[in-house]
Amino acid sequence: MMMNVPLTIPMMFEHAERYFSKKVVISRTAGGVHRFTYGEIAQRTRRLAHALEKLGVQKGERVGTLAWNHHRHLEAYFAIPSMGAVLHTINIRLSPQQIAYIINHAEDKVLLIDPDILPLVEAIAPYLSTVKAFVLMSNTDLPDSPLKPLYSYETLLAESDPAFSFPSIEDENQAAGMCYTSATTGNPKGVVYTHRSIVLHAMALGLADSTAVSERDTVLTVVPMFHVNAWGLPFACVWFGSTQVLPGPYFTPQLLAEFMETEQVTVTGGVPTIWLGLLKELEQKVYDLSSLRGLLCGGSAAPLAMVRAFEEKWKVPFYHAYGMTETSPLVSFARLKSYQDGSEEDRIQSLTRQGYMVQGTEMKVVGAEGEVKWDDKEMGELLLRGPWIASEYYRDERSDDTFKDGWLHTGDVVTVDEEGSIKIVDRTKDLIKSGGEWISSVDLENTLMTHEAVFEACVVGIPHEKWEERPLACIVLKDLYKGQNLKLEILEFLHTQFAKWWIPDDIVFVDEIPKSGVGKFLKRELREQWQDYYVGSTTVID
Amino acid sequence: MMMNVPLTIPMMFEHAERYFSKKVVISRTAGGVHRFTYGEIAQRTRRLAHALEKLGVQKGERVGTLAWNHHRHLEAYFAIPSMGAVLHTINIRLSPQQIAYIINHAEDKVLLIDPDILPLVEAIAPYLSTVKAFVLMSNTDLPDSPLKPLYSYETLLAESDPAFSFPSIEDENQAAGMCYTSATTGNPKGVVYTHRSIVLHAMALGLADSTAVSERDTVLTVVPMFHVNAWGLPFACVWFGSTQVLPGPYFTPQLLAEFMETEQVTVTGGVPTIWLGLLKELEQKVYDLSSLRGLLCGGSAAPLAMVRAFEEKWKVPFYHAYGMTETSPLVSFARLKSYQDGSEEDRIQSLTRQGYMVQGTEMKVVGAEGEVKWDDKEMGELLLRGPWIASEYYRDERSDDTFKDGWLHTGDVVTVDEEGSIKIVDRTKDLIKSGGEWISSVDLENTLMTHEAVFEACVVGIPHEKWEERPLACIVLKDLYKGQNLKLEILEFLHTQFAKWWIPDDIVFVDEIPKSGVGKFLKRELREQWQDYYVGSTTVID
Repeated sequence: MMMNVPLTIPMMFEHAERYFSKKVVISRTAGGVHRFTYGEIAQRTRRLAHALEKLGVQKGERVGTLAWNHHRHLEAYFAIPSMGAVLHTINIRLSPQQIAYIINHAEDKVLLIDPDILPLVEAIAPYLSTVKAFVLMSNTDLPDSPLKPLYSYETLLAESDPAFSFPSIEDENQAAGMCYTSATTGNPKGVVYTHRSIVLHAMALGLADSTAVSERDTVLTVVPMFHVNAWGLPFACVWFGSTQVLPGPYFTPQLLAEFMETEQVTVTGGVPTIWLGLLKELEQKVYDLSSLRGLLCGGSAAPLAMVRAFEEKWKVPFYHAYGMTETSPLVSFARLKSYQDGSEEDRIQSLTRQGYMVQGTEMKVVGAEGEVKWDDKEMGELLLRGPWIASEYYRDERSDDTFKDGWLHTGDVVTVDEEGSIKIVDRTKDLIKSGGEWISSVDLENTLMTHEAVFEACVVGIPHEKWEERPLACIVLKDLYKGQNLKLEILEFLHTQFAKWWIPDDIVFVDEIPKSGVGKFLKRELREQWQDYYVGSTTVID
Repeated sequence: MMMNVPLTIPMMFEHAERYFSKKVVISRTAGGVHRFTYGEIAQRTRRLAHALEKLGVQKGERVGTLAWNHHRHLEAYFAIPSMGAVLHTINIRLSPQQIAYIINHAEDKVLLIDPDILPLVEAIAPYLSTVKAFVLMSNTDLPDSPLKPLYSYETLLAESDPAFSFPSIEDENQAAGMCYTSATTGNPKGVVYTHRSIVLHAMALGLADSTAVSERDTVLTVVPMFHVNAWGLPFACVWFGSTQVLPGPYFTPQLLAEFMETEQVTVTGGVPTIWLGLLKELEQKVYDLSSLRGLLCGGSAAPLAMVRAFEEKWKVPFYHAYGMTETSPLVSFARLKSYQDGSEEDRIQSLTRQGYMVQGTEMKVVGAEGEVKWDDKEMGELLLRGPWIASEYYRDERSDDTFKDGWLHTGDVVTVDEEGSIKIVDRTKDLIKSGGEWISSVDLENTLMTHEAVFEACVVGIPHEKWEERPLACIVLKDLYKGQNLKLEILEFLHTQFAKWWIPDDIVFVDEIPKSGVGKFLKRELREQWQDYYVGSTTVID
C-alpha cells in the first residue's frame, strides 16, 4: 500500500525552508518596510516555536494572535501549528466584549499582540480567564502595561533556538488553527481547521484552474490574516515558494498600488471594499500594474461595475471567488469554461457569479421542492461538503442549525446556470456584510426593540458604494411617540452598545414592516424598497 | 472540526460528470477514431461498474486490464475503483510467464482484454487460477475462443444501468489500483495505490508548478495506461475536465503528430523513445504544434540533444519529470526557479536534470557518509517519502530490500545542486531501461551462465539512439571454448527463454569482467568502456 504520511503544516514549511530559502517576504509594520528571505523567516519561525514551548504552551493548546499582515504574523502561522498547538487568529474588528468572549471560549494560553492593539487587550485583560502570557509583536522596548507577564517578541526570539525541531505530527486531523465568525445573533462561533484541511486547501489554491499560486508569483495579501487565514494565501505562498508582500496596518489604496508597481505583484487578494478604494486611486494617479495576472476578490459579491473596471479599463483579470470562515474559505471560483466563448458582455456577467465548485468541494442546492434545476431560475439554499468544510462550531450548541445530514447549510440562496455556475441571489441569514465584516441585523434589532419608543425594528443591508452594504434601520414607533424626531437619540442609544461601524448609517421611520404569512419580516422586500437609499453616500465609518 | 470527507476516485469522477459533461474524449481503437463526451463516458462507466457487479466482482477484488490507451480503458479506470474493486493494469509487454504470474499473484477475478491481446491471454489461460470471467474490449462479435466465459464489453454495457449508483467509499486508504514493476531478479513486484494516493497525486498534476493540468487543456496521453496509471494523467484529466486524446494501439509518430495538430493538443506525455520518434517525424513533414504548451517526458532520463531539439528548434516547452511505479509516479519536476536566469545553455542543461521535489513529496540523498552536500558533486542514493509513495510491495518478501525506516530506497544514485535540484548519475539496481520498459540484467546473466560455454556473463545497459538503453552482454568463455564464435548460438539460447526485446543486441567476448574488492561486477566501468558501442545503431526490436 501507500505510506501513511500525514498532510501537515510543518511539511509545507519544511518544503519552503529547503527549496525556497532565497525567496523573499516583504513586510510592512509600524516600523517601516522590511525584507526577509524565507531562510530567515524559517529560522525565526523555529525560534518562535521554541519560545512558545518555553512559555509552557502544550500540544493542542490555543495561542491567539491580534495582529495585522506582516512577517511576525506569518511566523506565528507556521510556528504555532508546527509545534502542535493551535493558531487562533482573532478578528480585531470585533467589539471588545466579543474579543474577550472568544479568547475565553478558545481558552487561549498566550496572546501575540500588535503594538496598536495593545490598548484594546489592556482594556479587556480583567475579563480574560485563561491567558498566561502576553507577547508584544514589536522590536521596541516594552511599554508600561498592566498586562502581566508581557514579553517582547524579538527578545523571545533572540533567546531561542533557530534550529528548534518540531515534534512529529502523526494525525493530520489534529487541530491546527481556529477562527471565529459572526453569528446571526449572540457571540461569534468558532471554526477549527485541521492540518489536513489547511494542506488540502493550500493545494486547491495551487491548482491551475483556481488561483494557480506558484513559485513565479509575487502575492500581495490584503485580506487580513485574522480573516479565515487570509484565505489560506500565506500557507499556499510558503509551500509554493511565492514572494509575499504583507502590507501591515492602516494601509491606504495608494500604498497598495505602490506595492503592486514596485514589487511587480502578480496576484493580490482582498474584499470588494478594498478594490473600490484601489479603483479610485487608479483614477488619481498612473501606476504600472502590468505584472498583475489576477486580482482575487471574495468575502462578498463583487458589483458588476467593479468587475468591468478591472477587466476592461485596467486589463487586470478579476478572480471572483466564494467561501466563508466555515469553508477555509475557497469553495467556488468564477473562471469561464474553455468553450464559453460568448460576447464580452456575457464574459463580464459570468465573472460576477460565484462560479464553479473547486475540485474537492461538493454542492447541493435545495429549494422547497428538493434539489433545484440548473436553469438559473429556481432558487435554493447552497449546501456544501468537502474535506476543508467545517463539520461543527467549536463547543457550540448552535452547530446543529448549520450542520445537518453531513452538509454545511450556508444560508446563501443561489441559482445555478446550466453549466453548474452558482450565483448568490439572497441570504437566508440576517447578516449584513460591510467592508468584508459581518454585522448582525438581529442583534441590532433586538437592541433597538429595547428602546422605549420603538415598536418594531427591522435592520437590512443596503448597497453602499464604499462598504458594499451598510445597515439601514427601519423603525415603527409606538403610537405615543409617532411623529417625534428620535433619530439622533436612537442612534446614540446604539452607540453605547455596539462598535462604531455596526451603527446603521440612517434610520427611516415607517408605518409598518412588511411581513410574511407567518409574521416573519420580509427583509428582501425592504431591501428592494430602499436599495437606492445609500447611492452616492460616502460615509466614512472608520 | 472539519468534515470527514474521504478523497476518492468517485469524487473525481462525479465532479467531471456534473461540470464537464460536454467536454470530449477522442479515442482511437482498432476500429477507428471515436469521440465521446464525458457525459457519455460517465454513463458508460456506470454501466461498466454495474456489469462487473453482475459478474460477481466484490469489494476489494482485483479486475485486470490488458489494454491500450482508449475510452474503454478510461471507463475501467473509474468504474473499477468506484465500485470498490481494484483496477489492476497489466503491462502487456511483459513475457507471457510474467503476465500469468502477476494475474495469479494479484488474484484477478475478471480480465478486460483488447482484441489484439486475446491470443496472448488464450495462451496463458491454462495457467490462470483465479480468473472467473474474460471480457473482450470491442464492439465486434465474439470470436471462437477457449476462454470461458468470454463476454463482449459492449453487450455487457448495453445490458447494464447507466445510472448505477456507486457504493459509498468510507476509507480513502482503501486499495483502488495496482501495477506490477520489474524486479532486479525474479517475478515482477506489485504496487497497490489507494484512493487517497491517486487523488493527491492527481492534485499534484494540477498544480501550476508541475504539469498544471486544467480545463483549458487537451492532453494526448501517449504513455501506456498499463504503466503507473499512465502517470495519473487520465485521473487528473477527468477531474480537471481536460479534453483527452487516447491514441490506441500501434500508433506511429506520424499519428501522434497529426493528433497534436488536428486536436490542438496542449500537453502530451511519454517516454524518451516516443519523443525520439516524434523528432524524426518532425524532420520529415511540417506540422503545426503551436498549441503545445508542454511535452512531458519521464520514465528514463532525457538526453540533452532531445531537450535542446524540442526547446530550441521546435519551441515546445520540455517538461522533464521523474518517478517510478512505486511513486505513482510524479516525484520531481525540472522547472527552473524564477530567479534562475542564467544563459540559454544553463537553462537547457537544467532541464535535463530530474529537478525539484513536487510539493507533498520529500527526499533524502544518502551517501557513504550520511546525507550528501548540495554541491552537485557528492553522490548518494535517492530516498523518497510521501503520501503517494508505496510503503511495500504487495505480498512480497522482497519489500524489505526497498522500503526501510519509512523511506523508499529508489536505487537511483543522484547528486543535488545548491538549489536542491537532483540529477541521476547512476543506478544501484541492475536494471536496463529500454523504450520505457525494464530489462533485468541479472536475469539475463543468470540464464547466460547456465550455458555450457559461458564462464562469466555481465549484462549492461548501453546508450542507444532509439531505445535509450539496450542490453549488451559481456561474456568470458570457459577456456575450452575460447576463440570459438558462439555469438549466434548464445543469442538463440536466450531467445528460448526471454521476450524478443529483452535479448541483448550484441555480445562481446572479453578476457575478464572488472570486479570490485569483494568480487562484485563493476558494471559502471563496463558501461563506460562500451558506452559508444550502439552509437549509430538503429536495431528494431519490435
